[in-house]
Amino acid sequence: MRKTLKEIALEIGGEVVGDESIVITGVSSIKEAAIGDITFLSNPKYAPLLETTCASAVITSRDIAAPASKKAIIRTENPSLAFSKVISFILPETLKHPKGIHPSAIVSKNAKLANDVALGAYTVVEEGAKIGQGSIIYPSCYIGQDVEIGAGTLIYPNVSIRERTVIGSRVIIHSGTVLGSDGFGFVTVEGKHRKIPQVGIVEISDDVEIGANVTIDRARFDKTFIGRGTKIDNLVHIAHNVIVGENCFIVAQVGISGSTVIGNNVILAGQAGLVGHINIGDNAIVTAQSGVSKSVPANTTVSGYPARPFMYQQRVNACIQNLPKLSGLLKELKLRIEELEKKIGIKK
Amino acid sequence: MRKTLKEIALEIGGEVVGDESIVITGVSSIKEAAIGDITFLSNPKYAPLLETTCASAVITSRDIAAPASKKAIIRTENPSLAFSKVISFILPETLKHPKGIHPSAIVSKNAKLANDVALGAYTVVEEGAKIGQGSIIYPSCYIGQDVEIGAGTLIYPNVSIRERTVIGSRVIIHSGTVLGSDGFGFVTVEGKHRKIPQVGIVEISDDVEIGANVTIDRARFDKTFIGRGTKIDNLVHIAHNVIVGENCFIVAQVGISGSTVIGNNVILAGQAGLVGHINIGDNAIVTAQSGVSKSVPANTTVSGYPARPFMYQQRVNACIQNLPKLSGLLKELKLRIEELEKKIGIKK
Amino acid sequence: MRKTLKEIALEIGGEVVGDESIVITGVSSIKEAAIGDITFLSNPKYAPLLETTCASAVITSRDIAAPASKKAIIRTENPSLAFSKVISFILPETLKHPKGIHPSAIVSKNAKLANDVALGAYTVVEEGAKIGQGSIIYPSCYIGQDVEIGAGTLIYPNVSIRERTVIGSRVIIHSGTVLGSDGFGFVTVEGKHRKIPQVGIVEISDDVEIGANVTIDRARFDKTFIGRGTKIDNLVHIAHNVIVGENCFIVAQVGISGSTVIGNNVILAGQAGLVGHINIGDNAIVTAQSGVSKSVPANTTVSGYPARPFMYQQRVNACIQNLPKLSGLLKELKLRIEELEKKIGIKK
Repeated sequence: MRKTLKEIALEIGGEVVGDESIVITGVSSIKEAAIGDITFLSNPKYAPLLETTCASAVITSRDIAAPASKKAIIRTENPSLAFSKVISFILPETLKHPKGIHPSAIVSKNAKLANDVALGAYTVVEEGAKIGQGSIIYPSCYIGQDVEIGAGTLIYPNVSIRERTVIGSRVIIHSGTVLGSDGFGFVTVEGKHRKIPQVGIVEISDDVEIGANVTIDRARFDKTFIGRGTKIDNLVHIAHNVIVGENCFIVAQVGISGSTVIGNNVILAGQAGLVGHINIGDNAIVTAQSGVSKSVPANTTVSGYPARPFMYQQRVNACIQNLPKLSGLLKELKLRIEELEKKIGIKK
Repeated sequence: MRKTLKEIALEIGGEVVGDESIVITGVSSIKEAAIGDITFLSNPKYAPLLETTCASAVITSRDIAAPASKKAIIRTENPSLAFSKVISFILPETLKHPKGIHPSAIVSKNAKLANDVALGAYTVVEEGAKIGQGSIIYPSCYIGQDVEIGAGTLIYPNVSIRERTVIGSRVIIHSGTVLGSDGFGFVTVEGKHRKIPQVGIVEISDDVEIGANVTIDRARFDKTFIGRGTKIDNLVHIAHNVIVGENCFIVAQVGISGSTVIGNNVILAGQAGLVGHINIGDNAIVTAQSGVSKSVPANTTVSGYPARPFMYQQRVNACIQNLPKLSGLLKELKLRIEELEKKIGIKK
Repeated sequence: MRKTLKEIALEIGGEVVGDESIVITGVSSIKEAAIGDITFLSNPKYAPLLETTCASAVITSRDIAAPASKKAIIRTENPSLAFSKVISFILPETLKHPKGIHPSAIVSKNAKLANDVALGAYTVVEEGAKIGQGSIIYPSCYIGQDVEIGAGTLIYPNVSIRERTVIGSRVIIHSGTVLGSDGFGFVTVEGKHRKIPQVGIVEISDDVEIGANVTIDRARFDKTFIGRGTKIDNLVHIAHNVIVGENCFIVAQVGISGSTVIGNNVILAGQAGLVGHINIGDNAIVTAQSGVSKSVPANTTVSGYPARPFMYQQRVNACIQNLPKLSGLLKELKLRIEELEKKIGIKK
């Protein structure tokens, strides 16, 4: 959708300072924005970004000075709320999602589909499954027995959802993802690994997005749980009985071992690995490729292997970087001590 | 299935010490067990766990003292064998697996299916494929030309099995997994990478379990091989010509490069990576995120990057942790030596 | 295909030195070759490999001496070009790829397929898609709206290609791979992560090969791009707006973050991770498991976390390995300094 600043200002109840005829075609964060984007600025601390952002316009609060750069702004009462509205109507020309039930979709007669659900070709919906209002499932997906899917959820092709998985509303699941595969649980009896039945479920809360080729295992008992608004990137592995809080970011190729509990607003950066049975506190950040072997307190950033507080780890890394020099100095000091000992008559 | 201790004791020929009416609903290892579980204890060394386990009952040998905690036990001749029987009959209420050949499954007329094979909707079985007694294949799987599958094997939705792959009996393969994709082999001719044909196969032995979205590449010649009873977690990559022994655990997101040979009972923990053309001896353990660059002797635990013996690596890690302090001490000693040199009249 | 050396020499215009009746069944690089293989040697520097290669025959230039080992060689004007021809006709007995359009394939009437395209069972081709001469798509693939696929491209089962992806000619895509899933882009408004629409595309150039269960995300705007001749192994993640040059090798489980630019002939070894918004110069090599946090100049090898020049990193690793000893030495020197200080009468 293309909108002029004038049209946008009207929709959000704001005033344009600058050229009202600028056409907006996208939305972005202030740092990542490109020409044609609109973005927003809530925190006066970041006002300097108004001068440097590539966005074509910025939604600001009423008390922010017009930028020296003449960048167009729209002043409003609540910039983040206004921006949130803008995201909803500046959407790209929409892809034609599947509509209706494709004749080749196989739906158990015991499944319950809201009247406007869309199912792509060759999708299979097993008995007892329930799919809510407006949900769209692309071709060749598998929706297992007694799976529950909320309203407005979007599932791309070739997704496998095993029995009894519960999925909320407005969830997005990308292609190739597997929800509800068996947890990796065995007991070794006389040298052979016997399977421990994994009879729990996976539950995905509202507004979660799950990338492509992700795997989330079902719990042994009870549930593996992903909290509301959490966003998961591609190729992430989440083991059985993991609990993830709300509004987390779990970046590509992260692995979380069994029964670990992640708080709210946590960021796990790419390729990080977490052992099982630990707690990651609210707002914690685990940097890329870290190996987390014990619990992380809330509001802490950890890094490295084994993961330690970020600032300490930075010092350790600087020392490591400097090791060849330290090692050389140590050898030099040894010689100097030997010379001193000789002079003074200490025999070694 | 729910069983009382009395019923279980009867089935395994044991004697209950404690409340016979306790109802068991699951099985687990002694440390991981929860209320409702039964577990077992073979090794008297672990008898203290009898006091702390959350299991509702424990199968023990006849010479173990009844626990002070009054925990219910069942005494038998051979606890691990008895437990093994219990696993078989304490199973969760079974999921309704596909039954029979779904009319939409496409089976080449040259394929040979045992009379009770189940094929889900939209599964394709190519010519020359053979599928054994009681094997169940969920919807939307691809079973390539001349693939052989044993008896009692279970394959979940959206699995791709390329031509000539051989799969044993009682194998479980989770959704999204790909067996027999081409090995990553190229020869560079005048700056361009030309494909080396990968004409070998993948062979999966009996009782193997393979997680979701795993990839196991076909060999260049000969075979990529997974030994009997080995369990592979999600998102693992196994390259061409790798040989894996029996009863190994390969945890999520491990990567094994081409032609590496893994012994029996090896544990590769999560996100570990192994270079190609090395040997990992029997019973070796590679800890999480390790990078293994050379062969590992049998019965050894290795850790870190490049992977070294675990105990040594622990000391190295302690030193690394301590580096800022060591670095400070080194600077202090330098000053003290300078002072000594000055006192004694050594000029530097 | 089996060919004698005599037949091969005839095809490439070369002269056999040695037994003309040797039968060749495969092709390989000189180091990896096995009995039955033919390989080639262009660079006289590597002539010693002629004595040690396991290949049954080697194509060489006219000025290379016959090997002492009596290894059969074929002399030609241009060994690499000749070898390139041999690869084309020494191919394994060909797999029967799908032929024609399977009656169960669903093709939008607005899709444009060249007359000899093959579509496997249950493959779905959405409206506006174009597929070129001789391309083969296996069963259960999804080819989204307006996708363009060149000539001679091969796509294995269960591949998902989202709308508007552009794929060149002679591309190979292995099973389970997802092209064009949404980039991982959000803007946080009042604590909630709002999706930034990802309206760009993925473009895959000619002669690229992509392994199994790979994910390549569509760009936010513009395109995520893979250059001609690049080869990508299994379970690799390539984020939105990444640009990869020509003839690169991206080994299994590598992750590349958003907007990073990779030059030509770059090698990213297994499990390496790259942060976003950096440049990797032509011919650079990133060793396995490295974490690359800043740009890498052309013709450089980097290693470790954070990645540093390989030779320096080797020294650092040697020092790390030696840390317990260094640490012990440091303590010893401290004692010796204390003794010296006492002798001399310095009080600490």
